[in-house]
Amino acid sequence: MSIRIGILGYGNLGRGVELAVKSAPDMELVCVFTRRDPATVKIATANIPVVSTTEVEKWTDKIDVLILCGGSATDLPTQTPEYAKLFNVVDSFDTHARIPEHFANVDASAKVAGKVAVISCGWDPGMFSLARVYSNAILPDGNDYTFWGKGVSQGHSDAIRRIKGVKNAKQYTIPVEAALEAVRNGENPELTTRQKHTRECFVVLEEGADAAAVEKEIKEMPNYFADYDTTVHFISEDELLKNHSGMAHGGFVFRSGKTGANKEHNHIIEYSLKLDSNPEFTTSVLIAVARAAYRMNSEGMKGCKTILDIPPAYLSEKSGEELRAHLL
Amino acid sequence: MSIRIGILGYGNLGRGVELAVKSAPDMELVCVFTRRDPATVKIATANIPVVSTTEVEKWTDKIDVLILCGGSATDLPTQTPEYAKLFNVVDSFDTHARIPEHFANVDASAKVAGKVAVISCGWDPGMFSLARVYSNAILPDGNDYTFWGKGVSQGHSDAIRRIKGVKNAKQYTIPVEAALEAVRNGENPELTTRQKHTRECFVVLEEGADAAAVEKEIKEMPNYFADYDTTVHFISEDELLKNHSGMAHGGFVFRSGKTGANKEHNHIIEYSLKLDSNPEFTTSVLIAVARAAYRMNSEGMKGCKTILDIPPAYLSEKSGEELRAHLL
Repeated sequence: MSIRIGILGYGNLGRGVELAVKSAPDMELVCVFTRRDPATVKIATANIPVVSTTEVEKWTDKIDVLILCGGSATDLPTQTPEYAKLFNVVDSFDTHARIPEHFANVDASAKVAGKVAVISCGWDPGMFSLARVYSNAILPDGNDYTFWGKGVSQGHSDAIRRIKGVKNAKQYTIPVEAALEAVRNGENPELTTRQKHTRECFVVLEEGADAAAVEKEIKEMPNYFADYDTTVHFISEDELLKNHSGMAHGGFVFRSGKTGANKEHNHIIEYSLKLDSNPEFTTSVLIAVARAAYRMNSEGMKGCKTILDIPPAYLSEKSGEELRAHLL
Repeated sequence: MSIRIGILGYGNLGRGVELAVKSAPDMELVCVFTRRDPATVKIATANIPVVSTTEVEKWTDKIDVLILCGGSATDLPTQTPEYAKLFNVVDSFDTHARIPEHFANVDASAKVAGKVAVISCGWDPGMFSLARVYSNAILPDGNDYTFWGKGVSQGHSDAIRRIKGVKNAKQYTIPVEAALEAVRNGENPELTTRQKHTRECFVVLEEGADAAAVEKEIKEMPNYFADYDTTVHFISEDELLKNHSGMAHGGFVFRSGKTGANKEHNHIIEYSLKLDSNPEFTTSVLIAVARAAYRMNSEGMKGCKTILDIPPAYLSEKSGEELRAHLL
């Protein structure tokens, strides 16, 4: 019997989940929930109902795992605790600093309901977290390095768009190649913010805006840009849409750790991702985690979990025998 | 209370476990078991008893996890099922083709005894297996690539040493850089054995041996060398000991997978290790797994497990709260 998946929210993530379910032989999509008027939401899959979130309670017996595809800023902090009262749920909550609070809220709901809720699944938090936890457990005496990019940072792009005179903008976060190499070579460098990443901005101005003033305001913006080497390019809206609409992203997680009687041996663990589509990779993780959530709940587990609590084999549609014979 | 660790077998792995326990704040070494005369075995840690394996049954109440440091060819196939009757155990059994059989034997013993036995922990099988299983679960439509090296292959070195006229030898397995790059670039190449790795041999001849004949025999050896581009260097025993006694190793695991309505997006997941000491890294994994084995058994689990069955958080000495706050 297939694992029955529901999607809540039909944006980039919702569409990605829809595609990922098609690639999963043991899953089927049964419903897409939307806060919009369902009649206005056209989904890619034929014969799957689009239903208002106001009717979600009617579906509790028809869905094994509900995948929450809202945003971390305002949607998930309320949605995940709410829907964990009704379904096994999975989310991609990615505001690192607020994870403990989100975990506590979701755990309370899911425990009462007897459901499993897995939060913060994607690539960071998610696969990068796994890389950090495994490598820290193995090499307790060492240094962690996480680099992001090259890829668009939504938060930094938004920050530029809020500047007066800016019509549109995209900002790329780019790891500094020399820093990557120093880490890879086991030099265990101490890196400042500026030494780890550069920021490259593509900006469309409103008519009559002062380019020099905008560039200065970007480069001096505290937290977002002031601590980085930032490049600003002014381009036309056509060029922005044509050349900067991609959703590629990626990054690197390193652990550089020492062993030996005199700590004379260095070891480098490197995990990296190069993704053509950030949302489609994130949703591919969500789908694998949904499989695990269903299995864990079927075994009687309940409460809030993260990917750190999931036995890796639970993410795979293959059996333990198959995994041991072919992938171990 | 510390997790009480026993070591069985005091070779490279046993010494590595001894060092790794020292780096683990939540563990203590309580005993080293040897098949040799204990009086002849000097260990690095003061005040820890070295005991004959014939007395191991007296230690069942004093050890939480026994780490089996024997070899995969002849030791572990009998030792792991035997000691899983008495202790939670961890081994580094690495004969991939025989893992299902080893798993079945160990599982039978451990289940009857109510112990947890984790087999095949190290880097391959071990961390590389994790990389393969995670990335296959996330990207079901894709290709796997595993490369080993640069590092010494014990099996290939032994094969050379068995040739008439060879006094000593070391063989390095080296990944082909062009193949790594093609995979990294998302070209999804189909690679022959020859295109993935080269083999470099450093050989010390017996006096009067025929170098040309030895080189021919190496290069034409089926399975081991015939399918590879192999280089043979003849050197003195002094040079071999001076320049080729290191135990560095490493390798790369890639998954290159596609998503999207028309499979138009490619994603590359790369996991790599660059290890100054193969045995010390392997034993660092064994120690983290021993922690997990102890926790799993404390929760009532029993039977044979692999690293694919272990929730990642169980490997870390940090609490769930700490992991979520700092590493997720």
